[in-house]
Amino acid sequence: MITLLEETRTEVALASWTNTIKRSALQEMLAAASRPGVISFALGLPAPELFPVHEYGEAAAAVLRSDPRALQYQPPFAPLKSQVVELMRRRGVFCREEQVFLTAGAQQGMNLLVRLLLEPGGQLLLEDIIYPGFQQVIEPFAPDLLLVSTDAQEGMNVDEVEAVLKSGRRPSFIYAIPDGHNPLGVSLSRRKREKLVDLAGTYGVPIIEDDAYGFLHYDGPLDPPMRSMDEDWVFYVGSFSKILAPALRVGWVIVPEKLLRPLSVIKEATDIDTATFSQRAVSAYLAAGHLDNHISRLHEEYRLRRQVMHDALLKHFPAHAEWQKPKSGLFIWVDLPGELDTTELLQHAIGKEQVAFVPGGAFRVNSHWPQRQSLRLNFSHCAPPQIEEGIARLARAIADLSGEAKCYDQLIPLN
Amino acid sequence: MITLLEETRTEVALASWTNTIKRSALQEMLAAASRPGVISFALGLPAPELFPVHEYGEAAAAVLRSDPRALQYQPPFAPLKSQVVELMRRRGVFCREEQVFLTAGAQQGMNLLVRLLLEPGGQLLLEDIIYPGFQQVIEPFAPDLLLVSTDAQEGMNVDEVEAVLKSGRRPSFIYAIPDGHNPLGVSLSRRKREKLVDLAGTYGVPIIEDDAYGFLHYDGPLDPPMRSMDEDWVFYVGSFSKILAPALRVGWVIVPEKLLRPLSVIKEATDIDTATFSQRAVSAYLAAGHLDNHISRLHEEYRLRRQVMHDALLKHFPAHAEWQKPKSGLFIWVDLPGELDTTELLQHAIGKEQVAFVPGGAFRVNSHWPQRQSLRLNFSHCAPPQIEEGIARLARAIADLSGEAKCYDQLIPLN
Repeated sequence: MITLLEETRTEVALASWTNTIKRSALQEMLAAASRPGVISFALGLPAPELFPVHEYGEAAAAVLRSDPRALQYQPPFAPLKSQVVELMRRRGVFCREEQVFLTAGAQQGMNLLVRLLLEPGGQLLLEDIIYPGFQQVIEPFAPDLLLVSTDAQEGMNVDEVEAVLKSGRRPSFIYAIPDGHNPLGVSLSRRKREKLVDLAGTYGVPIIEDDAYGFLHYDGPLDPPMRSMDEDWVFYVGSFSKILAPALRVGWVIVPEKLLRPLSVIKEATDIDTATFSQRAVSAYLAAGHLDNHISRLHEEYRLRRQVMHDALLKHFPAHAEWQKPKSGLFIWVDLPGELDTTELLQHAIGKEQVAFVPGGAFRVNSHWPQRQSLRLNFSHCAPPQIEEGIARLARAIADLSGEAKCYDQLIPLN
Repeated sequence: MITLLEETRTEVALASWTNTIKRSALQEMLAAASRPGVISFALGLPAPELFPVHEYGEAAAAVLRSDPRALQYQPPFAPLKSQVVELMRRRGVFCREEQVFLTAGAQQGMNLLVRLLLEPGGQLLLEDIIYPGFQQVIEPFAPDLLLVSTDAQEGMNVDEVEAVLKSGRRPSFIYAIPDGHNPLGVSLSRRKREKLVDLAGTYGVPIIEDDAYGFLHYDGPLDPPMRSMDEDWVFYVGSFSKILAPALRVGWVIVPEKLLRPLSVIKEATDIDTATFSQRAVSAYLAAGHLDNHISRLHEEYRLRRQVMHDALLKHFPAHAEWQKPKSGLFIWVDLPGELDTTELLQHAIGKEQVAFVPGGAFRVNSHWPQRQSLRLNFSHCAPPQIEEGIARLARAIADLSGEAKCYDQLIPLN
């Protein structure tokens, strides 16, 4: 298409999809919640005091001492792939090095898989309450979304998934977070996992299984990931961000072997598909045998923090509030049936009580369908005394606003 | 669009653009050239023995000791932005922290800018011989390419750029590598830079200025980057990969301030827009004052290697071979006028003489327009004795094949 004598532009013309972009609610929270004095339950941050700073520093130093080529362009680091194979085995997933693709974290893993599978304007299937970072990944494709319902008790409604596929629709993929769901905290039952995997194979629709949280469990081992049940139709996304450290940006994807080549072409175009120094250092950290102890320590500490938050909610929150104690992940999802709008609550909570969370509405895929009465609380980042104090503050903010809400209720009939 | 009763798929359906993907020629080279015994001039690799392993290790350790939050999700590291501002000033570019966006290397920088500017099927302007990694970045967009000619003596034909814009075409952007061009080695004259910048402003078409090599110069300072002449229409891409180490994956982009927000949304969706540990460690390395000495050392050593390669080419290569001594970058581009096809030469060179390079054809944007008689040689990676030996080997391979080519010439009339 050649346009002759087009007007001279006076402003840089951006790709049209950028017209709809907005900074994610989570980024906005990052700004507000990082003010000194604010107790933040907003972001999915690991506890920084638990980072294995000393052991990681030793691993990095050892790599630099032994091999200056660790700083060079190199193919993805094969020993780390074999360590990932071993790590996955402990979760009941049997895979081979040839199926492991190393990424710069789970977010990049999802991005690469979406670019591999989705056409612009293509169809995909997901829950109507989901991690906003995934919504950002798909946004440039202007996709046609097939939404199914979900909740904090049972998670994804798999019967609805079946109905969609039975009706003849064939989305490019199904996106699912089977453990420690972000934001709902829920883990899928074994029956739901089996049925989803069965549907994927029956209808020829792959599942992107986002398992960023599955290594964090607090009531004994979880059911195995869906990738343990099918290696052709389940594309697994894992990460060291939550079990080691986010700033290392090391993760992995497990896919059928033949997809490694197209993934490496996409990754090469994205950031050069080369072993990062982080891959080398993480591998050395794993080889030194530190990870098991570290994960056990995370389980112990996060289990405690989850309990402290649960107890504080019981003690301070209104009687009609509802939540589950999640078996995995970093979040408790609270429903506050009633008149309260949690977006208003957030402004009040930060402004008056100096406590932050993320309103449930931030996770709604269809923003026309509001999610006013829920909120997501992170329990991993703050130390126990802060959790207790923060929940008490939040309860005061709720009481304040509920009082006001009651006044409004009384005023409304008079207008 | 809802398709009812669609067939069940038996194979994973990939996005249609993946049908055309092929592993890049450079990736193929990486495989062949990494065999033991092969002297490789194929890839744009820094000299690994010059990596500042000790100083970088100390910087990383110091960061870990002083701040465990260096491993946490954090906003892009502001002190590194101000160090980039300072670094750019030494090249004659005046910018502000608010215009600096940190990336995981130049490749990611280009990827983000292309996603920001280019529509699927959109138009862009570039030289017909260019870095294949950039071709990979744009491939998923199935873009409409406006090609202008280029050569190793003068670089991009800016008069052709003017003619394209005068004809009324308005590409989303112009892509240019003003210094140490990959693969041609050429630097653009000041006059060409000024004219390009003038055209960009006049017609409202931004320039993506890929300056991965501009900090490496061997005959005194280069002309300043185009970003020094215009801050509205020139989007600058820089990287620490060539001046510090590739495996750190730290680079930057300089754009008008208002574009930082959409870029951060794109990057967040790609890999989480968070400070990597590498950003922190690179910043500490810079703060310790090591970079200037290190770059001086690179200049000295790469100048020597360029000279050794130049002398070896003079000594061993056929008299009709043509090349320039590049002022910047990592490559010498050699033209071998005559019958020789350099893709055939590569097979012969690797198989018989154990020496590798990249045939010029790998850099042609329009692959129907062959580039049979040229080759790209990297001079930064091999030590001087290897360079001398490798060029001698390559010259033998050329002599062998030229002999054969003559035989073929003699045979053809007989058929």
